[in-house]
Amino acid sequence: MTYCIGLQLRQGLVFMSDTRTNAGVDNISTVKKMHTWCVPGERFIALMTAGNLATTQAVVSMIEERTKLQEDRNPWILTAPSMFQTAQEVGRTLRDVIEASTQNGATAESSFAGTLILGGQIKGGPPRLFLIYPEGNFIEASGDNPFFQIGEAKYGKPILVRAFDTEMSYAAAVKLLLVSFDSTIKANLSVGPPIDYQVYETETFGPGPSGRIELDDPYYDTISKRWGEALRAAFDQLPDFELPPAP
Amino acid sequence: MTYCIGLQLRQGLVFMSDTRTNAGVDNISTVKKMHTWCVPGERFIALMTAGNLATTQAVVSMIEERTKLQEDRNPWILTAPSMFQTAQEVGRTLRDVIEASTQNGATAESSFAGTLILGGQIKGGPPRLFLIYPEGNFIEASGDNPFFQIGEAKYGKPILVRAFDTEMSYAAAVKLLLVSFDSTIKANLSVGPPIDYQVYETETFGPGPSGRIELDDPYYDTISKRWGEALRAAFDQLPDFELPPAP
Repeated sequence: MTYCIGLQLRQGLVFMSDTRTNAGVDNISTVKKMHTWCVPGERFIALMTAGNLATTQAVVSMIEERTKLQEDRNPWILTAPSMFQTAQEVGRTLRDVIEASTQNGATAESSFAGTLILGGQIKGGPPRLFLIYPEGNFIEASGDNPFFQIGEAKYGKPILVRAFDTEMSYAAAVKLLLVSFDSTIKANLSVGPPIDYQVYETETFGPGPSGRIELDDPYYDTISKRWGEALRAAFDQLPDFELPPAP
Repeated sequence: MTYCIGLQLRQGLVFMSDTRTNAGVDNISTVKKMHTWCVPGERFIALMTAGNLATTQAVVSMIEERTKLQEDRNPWILTAPSMFQTAQEVGRTLRDVIEASTQNGATAESSFAGTLILGGQIKGGPPRLFLIYPEGNFIEASGDNPFFQIGEAKYGKPILVRAFDTEMSYAAAVKLLLVSFDSTIKANLSVGPPIDYQVYETETFGPGPSGRIELDDPYYDTISKRWGEALRAAFDQLPDFELPPAP
């Protein structure tokens, strides 16, 4: 499993992904699921991946044209005229990789599918954020639906729904994402640290602040402990239910 | 889908179940998923069901021996000597019903499986709480694992993990379950009100307080609104993340 979130704020985009990959609970390792491409001053694109690791790594390799000699590479992701066209190409690549794996009816214990979050900005257009399905089609974030989650999305969704606000600062957004990750990591062994984050600030056409947060990071530790206490205090403040008498 | 929780408190058991049943989002209705049996002063048993409705209704009918004439009924659930043997019989019944449905390789769009939470007390033994799998085997709640969820368990789990305490009162426990249900109902259309609850107080061998909570219940409304505000306030209290400078 995996957990990745992409947020569309009024002032930019924020991406966060875990790094755990597993083939059974007895075979886990760490892999980066966040990929970025940049033409300084002209475009910045981030891609996060969930699903079959062979599929998603093949997609990234094909985007980077690793099928060609180093000097022949001219990836369309660095030249596509718009984010919409970039999403179309990424979706087509994902669908082609999955189709190639399932040719002749091949099946695997875990499915060959993958799901992607793509976001960024290309000069001339606004920042955009997409969720790309294994079939290659995609949906876009909007005011009513300003974030996407892929992978193990359920444990960490309630806090996103309650506390997300498109006007929030990057610092508050990263805090929100860490709270959502903490609930998920506590519940599902197949989502695990370290956690990568990437901020994109509108109209910069370059990478914003980014980093990797380890489990023993003092800030993460503070959030994890104090969130538990704060939840407990919030719960205690609510009035108790008045039980009727036993029949 | 469905959502049911069974809690083992130091002083007794608390059960809560939703009532939504659906065959696709265009075909929903309301059905009670909480069933109780009592021999006053001698035993009290509660059963909650998730999964294929035909399967779980057949299990309850077979437990009640509805295959027989009214006057010939002598259900083992009213005479079994222990909760453990009751769990074995319920598990066997569940497995038999599922096997009968899948005979000759019959399949359905939704699986024939069902999962059950069984709890109660029979004179001479302590209160016990079991989770029964479609294969008919089961696990029991313990100090390390004092509650069971069936159905759509993920959205409502983080608050249970953080706020549950075996020493809590019944009134606080019902509040906790309602907060967990509220997070789930907000996220998954296939879990819906009204919500049934049942308390069992140790050594009473009879039903404790019970009832049905509708969506427009003033207490539920208070919990739902104030929990959102309290979460938001708890989140705001946490320190913001300090972002590094952009590269």
